[in-house]
Amino acid sequence: MVHRGDLAVSTRGRGTYDITRDVRQVVAASGAKDGVATVWIHHTSASLIICENADPDVRRDLEAFMARLVPDGDRLFVHTAEGEDDMPAHVRSVLTQTSIGIPITDGKLVLGTWQGLYLWEHRTSAHQRRVTVTVIGE
Amino acid sequence: MVHRGDLAVSTRGRGTYDITRDVRQVVAASGAKDGVATVWIHHTSASLIICENADPDVRRDLEAFMARLVPDGDRLFVHTAEGEDDMPAHVRSVLTQTSIGIPITDGKLVLGTWQGLYLWEHRTSAHQRRVTVTVIGE
Amino acid sequence: MVHRGDLAVSTRGRGTYDITRDVRQVVAASGAKDGVATVWIHHTSASLIICENADPDVRRDLEAFMARLVPDGDRLFVHTAEGEDDMPAHVRSVLTQTSIGIPITDGKLVLGTWQGLYLWEHRTSAHQRRVTVTVIGE
Repeated sequence: MVHRGDLAVSTRGRGTYDITRDVRQVVAASGAKDGVATVWIHHTSASLIICENADPDVRRDLEAFMARLVPDGDRLFVHTAEGEDDMPAHVRSVLTQTSIGIPITDGKLVLGTWQGLYLWEHRTSAHQRRVTVTVIGE
Repeated sequence: MVHRGDLAVSTRGRGTYDITRDVRQVVAASGAKDGVATVWIHHTSASLIICENADPDVRRDLEAFMARLVPDGDRLFVHTAEGEDDMPAHVRSVLTQTSIGIPITDGKLVLGTWQGLYLWEHRTSAHQRRVTVTVIGE
Repeated sequence: MVHRGDLAVSTRGRGTYDITRDVRQVVAASGAKDGVATVWIHHTSASLIICENADPDVRRDLEAFMARLVPDGDRLFVHTAEGEDDMPAHVRSVLTQTSIGIPITDGKLVLGTWQGLYLWEHRTSAHQRRVTVTVIGE
C-alpha cells in the first residue's frame, strides 16, 4: 500500500520548523500499521533534520554552528546570484538531509522520545516550502 | 511484505560499532528476496554511517576529524546541560545519518565489498542505543 | 512491487556527475505509478547528493567548500594508503549520502524544478562506480 501526503510550510526565514505533527497526520490518514514514511523536501536551499525536541537551545546552537561553518558572504563562493546566503543555503542542505525514511509501527512513527523532525530553512528571507510524505506499508 | 527487527546496542562511549551482521540477520529472518531495509536509530546523540570496513584507521581518522570540526566544550554552545560532549553529539548526529535505506537482492543486503554499517556513539560515556530495521520487499 | 536497476558510472576523477536521467529511466521501466525509488552507491569514497541543477557554479562552490573543509594531505589523517585524497574521500562520503529515497508520483520522480541527483566522485583519479536503484511501489 502506498499513500501520499503533501505539506506546505511557510517559513519566516532562517531557522528550524517542527513538522513532526504534520507528518504524523499523514501517517494516521494512510491507515498503515507497519511500514516506512519517506519524507522529502522539494528544495536545495532548505533541508530536513532529526533533532532533539526538548531544549530549544539545541536548535539555536545548531544554527550557530552552521553559521560559523558555512559563513554568509564567504569570498570562496562564486554563486552569489541571490545574495550572501544563497550558496551557504545549498551547502547546508547538502550537509544535512533532503530525504528521511522513518519507520511506522502500530500505526505510528517510531520516533524516539526526544526526536523531532524539522524543516531547516537556510535562506534568510521567508519562503514557501513543499514537503512530500510517502507511506509504504500494510 | 513488511518485517521489523529491533536491535539493542550497548556502547562503551564515543566510537564506531559495527552493526552490519545484526542488520543482515534481520534481513535473513524477514525472508525477503528483493526490497529495501530501512535502518533507524532512536537517538539524537548517536547516528549511523556507511564506512570502509577494512582498515580501522579510517574510523580513527573520522573520529579525529569530527573532534576537530565539532570540538567538545566549544564556547559557541549554550546547551551544555549534560556536559561538554552534549551539544557536539547533537551536531555530529545532524551531520551524519539517523536513517539509511539499504537495498536487498537475492535475500541479502547489497553492501559493497568495503562497506560496513556502523552505529556512531557521539557521547563520551557508555549508552544503551536502540535501532529499528524495517524490511519492505517481496 | 519491487523493481531494480543497476547503473555503471565512469567518472573522470573528482567532481559531480548528473545521474538524474539514468534514475528516471529505471523508474519508467519499473512501471510504478506511486512509491519510492531508493538510490544506493556501492562505495565509501564517492557519494550521492541532491543539488541545484541550473548554475554549474553551485557544484564548483560545493567542491571548493569541501576541499577547504577536508583538505587533501591533512596531517591529521593516518589512513593514507592510497594517497592524499584517500581519507578525505571517506570523510566527504560520510558527510553526504550513500542512500537517498526519492518519491514517485504519476510514474515520475517528484524532484523539484531545480533539484538534480548527482554522484559525487571524491577521489582525484577516474573510477568505475556502481549505483543500484530499487523501486518499491504500485
